[in-house]
Amino acid sequence: ARTGDPEVVYGAGKTPDQVVAILRALHDKHPERAVLATRLTPEALATIGEALPEATLDPVARAVTLGPLPTARGTVAVVAAGTSDAPVAAEAALTVAVHGAGVERIDDVGVAGLHRLLGVRDRLAQADCLIVVAGMEGALPSVVGGLTGVPMVAVPTSVGYGASLGGVAALLAMLNSCAPGVTVVNIDNGYGAGVHAARVARQSAPR
Amino acid sequence: ARTGDPEVVYGAGKTPDQVVAILRALHDKHPERAVLATRLTPEALATIGEALPEATLDPVARAVTLGPLPTARGTVAVVAAGTSDAPVAAEAALTVAVHGAGVERIDDVGVAGLHRLLGVRDRLAQADCLIVVAGMEGALPSVVGGLTGVPMVAVPTSVGYGASLGGVAALLAMLNSCAPGVTVVNIDNGYGAGVHAARVARQSAPR
Amino acid sequence: ARTGDPEVVYGAGKTPDQVVAILRALHDKHPERAVLATRLTPEALATIGEALPEATLDPVARAVTLGPLPTARGTVAVVAAGTSDAPVAAEAALTVAVHGAGVERIDDVGVAGLHRLLGVRDRLAQADCLIVVAGMEGALPSVVGGLTGVPMVAVPTSVGYGASLGGVAALLAMLNSCAPGVTVVNIDNGYGAGVHAARVARQSAPR
Amino acid sequence: ARTGDPEVVYGAGKTPDQVVAILRALHDKHPERAVLATRLTPEALATIGEALPEATLDPVARAVTLGPLPTARGTVAVVAAGTSDAPVAAEAALTVAVHGAGVERIDDVGVAGLHRLLGVRDRLAQADCLIVVAGMEGALPSVVGGLTGVPMVAVPTSVGYGASLGGVAALLAMLNSCAPGVTVVNIDNGYGAGVHAARVARQSAPR
Amino acid sequence: ARTGDPEVVYGAGKTPDQVVAILRALHDKHPERAVLATRLTPEALATIGEALPEATLDPVARAVTLGPLPTARGTVAVVAAGTSDAPVAAEAALTVAVHGAGVERIDDVGVAGLHRLLGVRDRLAQADCLIVVAGMEGALPSVVGGLTGVPMVAVPTSVGYGASLGGVAALLAMLNSCAPGVTVVNIDNGYGAGVHAARVARQSAPR
Amino acid sequence: ARTGDPEVVYGAGKTPDQVVAILRALHDKHPERAVLATRLTPEALATIGEALPEATLDPVARAVTLGPLPTARGTVAVVAAGTSDAPVAAEAALTVAVHGAGVERIDDVGVAGLHRLLGVRDRLAQADCLIVVAGMEGALPSVVGGLTGVPMVAVPTSVGYGASLGGVAALLAMLNSCAPGVTVVNIDNGYGAGVHAARVARQSAPR
Amino acid sequence: ARTGDPEVVYGAGKTPDQVVAILRALHDKHPERAVLATRLTPEALATIGEALPEATLDPVARAVTLGPLPTARGTVAVVAAGTSDAPVAAEAALTVAVHGAGVERIDDVGVAGLHRLLGVRDRLAQADCLIVVAGMEGALPSVVGGLTGVPMVAVPTSVGYGASLGGVAALLAMLNSCAPGVTVVNIDNGYGAGVHAARVARQSAPR
Amino acid sequence: ARTGDPEVVYGAGKTPDQVVAILRALHDKHPERAVLATRLTPEALATIGEALPEATLDPVARAVTLGPLPTARGTVAVVAAGTSDAPVAAEAALTVAVHGAGVERIDDVGVAGLHRLLGVRDRLAQADCLIVVAGMEGALPSVVGGLTGVPMVAVPTSVGYGASLGGVAALLAMLNSCAPGVTVVNIDNGYGAGVHAARVARQSAPR
Ligand SMILES: Nc1ncnc2c1ncn2[C@@H]1O[C@H](COP(=O)(O)O)[C@@H](O)[C@H]1O
Ligand SMILES: Nc1ncnc2c1ncn2[C@@H]1O[C@H](COP(=O)(O)O)[C@@H](O)[C@H]1O
Ligand SMILES: Nc1ncnc2c1ncn2[C@@H]1O[C@H](COP(=O)(O)O)[C@@H](O)[C@H]1O
Ligand SMILES: Nc1ncnc2c1ncn2[C@@H]1O[C@H](COP(=O)(O)O)[C@@H](O)[C@H]1O
Ligand SMILES: [Mg+2]
Ligand SMILES: [Mg+2]
Ligand SMILES: [Mg+2]
Ligand SMILES: [Mg+2]
Ligand SMILES: [Mg+2]
Ligand SMILES: [Mg+2]
Ligand SMILES: [Mg+2]
Ligand SMILES: [Mg+2]
Repeated sequence: ARTGDPEVVYGAGKTPDQVVAILRALHDKHPERAVLATRLTPEALATIGEALPEATLDPVARAVTLGPLPTARGTVAVVAAGTSDAPVAAEAALTVAVHGAGVERIDDVGVAGLHRLLGVRDRLAQADCLIVVAGMEGALPSVVGGLTGVPMVAVPTSVGYGASLGGVAALLAMLNSCAPGVTVVNIDNGYGAGVHAARVARQSAPR
Repeated sequence: ARTGDPEVVYGAGKTPDQVVAILRALHDKHPERAVLATRLTPEALATIGEALPEATLDPVARAVTLGPLPTARGTVAVVAAGTSDAPVAAEAALTVAVHGAGVERIDDVGVAGLHRLLGVRDRLAQADCLIVVAGMEGALPSVVGGLTGVPMVAVPTSVGYGASLGGVAALLAMLNSCAPGVTVVNIDNGYGAGVHAARVARQSAPR
Repeated sequence: ARTGDPEVVYGAGKTPDQVVAILRALHDKHPERAVLATRLTPEALATIGEALPEATLDPVARAVTLGPLPTARGTVAVVAAGTSDAPVAAEAALTVAVHGAGVERIDDVGVAGLHRLLGVRDRLAQADCLIVVAGMEGALPSVVGGLTGVPMVAVPTSVGYGASLGGVAALLAMLNSCAPGVTVVNIDNGYGAGVHAARVARQSAPR
Repeated sequence: ARTGDPEVVYGAGKTPDQVVAILRALHDKHPERAVLATRLTPEALATIGEALPEATLDPVARAVTLGPLPTARGTVAVVAAGTSDAPVAAEAALTVAVHGAGVERIDDVGVAGLHRLLGVRDRLAQADCLIVVAGMEGALPSVVGGLTGVPMVAVPTSVGYGASLGGVAALLAMLNSCAPGVTVVNIDNGYGAGVHAARVARQSAPR
Repeated sequence: ARTGDPEVVYGAGKTPDQVVAILRALHDKHPERAVLATRLTPEALATIGEALPEATLDPVARAVTLGPLPTARGTVAVVAAGTSDAPVAAEAALTVAVHGAGVERIDDVGVAGLHRLLGVRDRLAQADCLIVVAGMEGALPSVVGGLTGVPMVAVPTSVGYGASLGGVAALLAMLNSCAPGVTVVNIDNGYGAGVHAARVARQSAPR
Repeated sequence: ARTGDPEVVYGAGKTPDQVVAILRALHDKHPERAVLATRLTPEALATIGEALPEATLDPVARAVTLGPLPTARGTVAVVAAGTSDAPVAAEAALTVAVHGAGVERIDDVGVAGLHRLLGVRDRLAQADCLIVVAGMEGALPSVVGGLTGVPMVAVPTSVGYGASLGGVAALLAMLNSCAPGVTVVNIDNGYGAGVHAARVARQSAPR
Repeated sequence: ARTGDPEVVYGAGKTPDQVVAILRALHDKHPERAVLATRLTPEALATIGEALPEATLDPVARAVTLGPLPTARGTVAVVAAGTSDAPVAAEAALTVAVHGAGVERIDDVGVAGLHRLLGVRDRLAQADCLIVVAGMEGALPSVVGGLTGVPMVAVPTSVGYGASLGGVAALLAMLNSCAPGVTVVNIDNGYGAGVHAARVARQSAPR
Repeated sequence: ARTGDPEVVYGAGKTPDQVVAILRALHDKHPERAVLATRLTPEALATIGEALPEATLDPVARAVTLGPLPTARGTVAVVAAGTSDAPVAAEAALTVAVHGAGVERIDDVGVAGLHRLLGVRDRLAQADCLIVVAGMEGALPSVVGGLTGVPMVAVPTSVGYGASLGGVAALLAMLNSCAPGVTVVNIDNGYGAGVHAARVARQSAPR
């Protein structure tokens, strides 16, 4: 792509066979680069696993890569509170790797357990960019943003029910964060956060 | 009132003279009890100050009381992050006092400054009920709720702009709090939170 | 948990086997305490029933407990109008019991049948905390709140169609209740109401 | 008008002089009939009072009539809880009178004071149509609808703040009323309720 | 019921067997009256057809009646534009009949075909109450309301897609109708419209 | 402009002096063309009237033109129901003229008075494009669209209150119109409708 | 139809057999004209293919035609960015053809690839009307509108997730386009755009 | 502040004297650093200009700084289309400078004038971070994001009317951008965008 990014296939609304065909075509054109496919159904994952045995499957992220990952430059820390947000955090982490930055996963650090969060403070500070994933009330980015000045992207997730309005509550909370400099992407958009954070991390790493 | 609560005048949409008249009538009927008037304009506060010199004015809360406050039983801690939320916190605190419970104010403890919050942990734990006031992303109740099991009422405020939607973002966040047992009242409704918390505190105090 | 509450498993989005595994692990760690699992599918209930025969199943509440319930202190009255709201009322009631308070169920008392409601007035007044569950127009908390000054938590349910907007209509009604001191939790959140009410009831009971 | 109704001037967005001119023109054409003007500013009311001394001013309803009212047939009871809803109730009542039905006002009967409401039960039952006006949580129509089978129109008002969303909360509540047969008009639309109720009352009265 | 209405079973969320059991119980108590069950699934309709052969099934209305209909007094005209709105119109019509008024169906009269509408003008004028059902832009009540002064209830339906927002577009249109006296019920609520209209028609008919 | 359209100044948020300066600069550059300024406050209109006496003021449209209007080709009929919608209809009409098409005004034709509408059917059919302006329930485009197959642009206005939601009700109605081929512009956007309609009319007129 | 348009069957909510029956009846009445059926399920397409072998199936558009298409006059360019929007673009294109105008498809021209868009500038300029289809952020109409003054209809699609709110984000974007003269239809309403554009194109073509 | 950022005073809701007092106090504590105050009314700006003559006023940004700006490291390009968005762009630019990065302003580049945008492509590519400001349909970030892979923060503004919903339309568009890696801040939040972008630019510049 014109922007220098790897090719990415958005799997939603495509049949397993369509995804396989696109992946194969992109991979054949540039076998030296990684291709990423996201938002895959279990059926698509299975079909890809059989049709493209050299592909790497990430069932939690509902995604696959095909071709060698680029050398990592810089580090993105992907922070998440709970297992419900795991698919979005995994999509973000894989996207970061495919876009050429290193990934540090920091899981199980919710706002209701501040001590675990305070315990990872150094790891947060050492990253070049943070991706903070949270559903329900979406409070985690505000708390993390009070602990460090590392550039941060917040990802609201659709985890919740009733007044969570499919993730809108978390989205609004993040947009209104009192921690300065929090930027936000669409609900469940681990991919978009990963692209931004990888770009920031790569250019922040000493060459 | 049938529920045993003091009389409260809702000042919004009433002229200063109307408020004075209602206050006077309620006070004359039961001079031994406190009457509370809320949501008063600066003009109403001034008019009451002149017409009812024995009234106690609380300009931050935009409220007045007339008549002796009841003896306090139990303690409600009113927690707020910033000066912007002060009017709502003050309305809550005054309402608690008028409804017969003691008030402990804990100010300046936002989610972006966790150390101040951790420093007041004991004061939170010693209260019989908590009122936690927050605008913007409304994250404070979740963080406080992770620190203590004291019953809590969260009050979203209309502080913010744009996607805060007049307080709806904070309201939704609080309704989706991952801290268990957080209950919520209407945006800016310090009064309602005060009534609930005072009831809880009073019945929790050993007789 | 740090707040002194029992462990609770949120079953939504977990497989039956995951729920069984988590329940078993928590129970093994503290066999002397109750563990609660909520939002269980019929499949999860069946799987648990077979895998953990000592668990107590509550199919109406879509929940199970494992381990002995704590001794009850204080009383929470759970008030609901109709059979449609039964699952939410049952989740609230079971949560109260698991969190150590006694439960009094008051069913079949809707706003359209005032006489039944007036008939239970004494039972309402004797409770330490009320949980009032209602869907559709969510009017029941306002009416109950006019009958008694006992602390109340209102639970809107998603029962309704069209302009009920999945429970948002009932939620908004309860947030705007003209009865003072009504606090509100998320749509269908019997669990959250139960935690708050049990805390209030326990600390209100004479020791 | 083709439907047999009197002419009504909607004052919002019109200058006082425009309202006077339209009233005068309509009155000159049919001096034997009443003309109604609603939604008048205090300035418009004052201008009309001077320019059309034979007009009858209703400052609470923010409305005037010019010309003789028709003979009343049938009775509409206009029910409202509080003083805040008075302008809407007054607009409804005046509209009923201008459209040829008798008016019975039942004030001060809110859902938080059931005994006053039960005390007016006979007056409700004797009306040919009910108009029930309520703001905030909009619960009154549900309660009244449980007491009587008289046809009812519910009018939500914009009284409230925060999550009342300018009357939308009351509107939604009324649309979801569990009392059967409640019909609803736009927020603050006392006029529309009055037209419907007067039509029902007139045709219900024995000729 | 206290209001003199027949018993009605709301079938949504009930199993076929539950509906059969309730219908049977209500019918046994008062075999001389009609019982109505609405919002029935095809499965419930089939089960009822077998278990209660004396019940009358109305598959278009997704409803059944059991027991003799009351003698009709007065007439309600049920007006609808298209086949998509037929289930709601049928629910309204059957509800009217069960509540003791006569029904006149006027179908296939949409706003885009004014001549058909003008052709039924007399039939509209002769009714005691109108029920006007419309989805999508919900314009039909405004046009009908310009043709006649008969009391009208408008029923928005969920027919449409995209910006119809599940019937909210039609609901808002009807609440803002420029035709005076249009009252509105919830989206798809043919039942509620039927109750109101039958009450109006019955009391309008000469005794 | 690159698209061949005349220059248009959007007056909202600009001071009267700024508008004068921009108008003068654009006029000096191309004195042979018309410049249009819209959304002018009364103050801006007055200032322009004095500073640019050769400008033509249209106070109803809250707009001015400077320089000669182009020769009209083709005809746009601007249809509106009431006086409240007049400013938007006037903005549309003036925009059409500035963009080189002829204007036919058809006023006072609301959905509640079908006979006036049927009386202008021929004038509608002879236009090359229709602009239909309506507030409140926004029903007029559907009715007009049933009478003629001329291309139509519908303009919702912010006229209304309560559930009109500032014009959103009319906007949604028009987007859901059952009349085929109705296209819609933003609320109160007479300008945008005028540009589209003038383009259609100009290219439809025989050269 | 009265407006001169061909008959169109809206397939949503109709059984395959119903669609076949309606198509056959309309075709028998006017075998010399085309009939269009839209929003067909795969089952309906299959049934029609068997029952009406002379029908032309368009599986991408989820539509069929029966009978000869009219001679095309004028040209509509249907512009779309991606494969996700293909069904809506295809519905628009087929509708244009059925309504008697020629179709020019311009695919694969998104806002993120400006050079492809600049490359089709001449083809855009030669059309008589443009239909621009876009989901997600709905930016394409603004960019196209800056390149040409040809009359344009924008069609938002429901492609997207999270904050796309089922197409509402794209709809709002198009309604607020800074390109003058963009008109908009309902989400996914390729049909409505096609009717408008065909009318414009036909009357723009020299006779 | 703990995060290493300069102190910033949020002027909204503070009196001019309060702002002066806070600025003075913060400046006295650290005269070697810059303090920033935003969201100042014209009155506050005037009062500060008199009371703190050494302060630097930025009336377009509605902001002031006091104390020396830090040495700039790295470059942030602030991109905006029109004069209406100027205040937000200026707030962003000043915030960047106060937070220690260099600023490059790129104005007058809207989506409707692609050639100006293509002409600044090199300047975009040379920045370390982009801030793209846009109101109305919020399309600019998508187009810029197709031209370059530089990390970007998009700022929706409240410029627009009607269906722009106070900036919500632009916000939603940006959240749904098809350009990968676009992150978003609250409506009109130039400050938040500036903090994020300055952090990214500073750490991207070679040390
Ligand atoms: N700040 C407040 N917010 C919400 N409700 C209030 C407030 N202050 C008073 N009220 C309620 O308003 C009632 C008095 O209303 P009124 O008779 O109009 O003065 C009191 O009994 C309270 O229930
Ligand atoms: N308070 C009101 N609310 C809603 N509609 C009204 C009201 N008062 C008058 N109207 C309607 O406005 C029409 C008159 O509008 P106008 O010609 O603008 O004065 C009347 O025929 C009524 O249909
Ligand atoms: N009433 C209006 N509504 C919407 N857009 C308008 C209006 N009047 C002018 N515009 C647009 O605003 C542009 C001029 O904006 P400006 O340069 O800020 O004056 C014109 O080219 C039009 O595209
Ligand atoms: N324009 C702005 N928009 C959003 N937040 C701001 C803005 N300006 C300052 N702030 C935040 O407000 C805080 C200061 O708030 P205060 O103490 O009320 O002046 C700063 O630390 C920033 O985080
Ligand atoms: Mg979370
Ligand atoms: Mg806060
Ligand atoms: Mg209920
Ligand atoms: Mg009320
Ligand atoms: Mg319709
Ligand atoms: Mg209208
Ligand atoms: Mg797109
Ligand atoms: Mg813009």
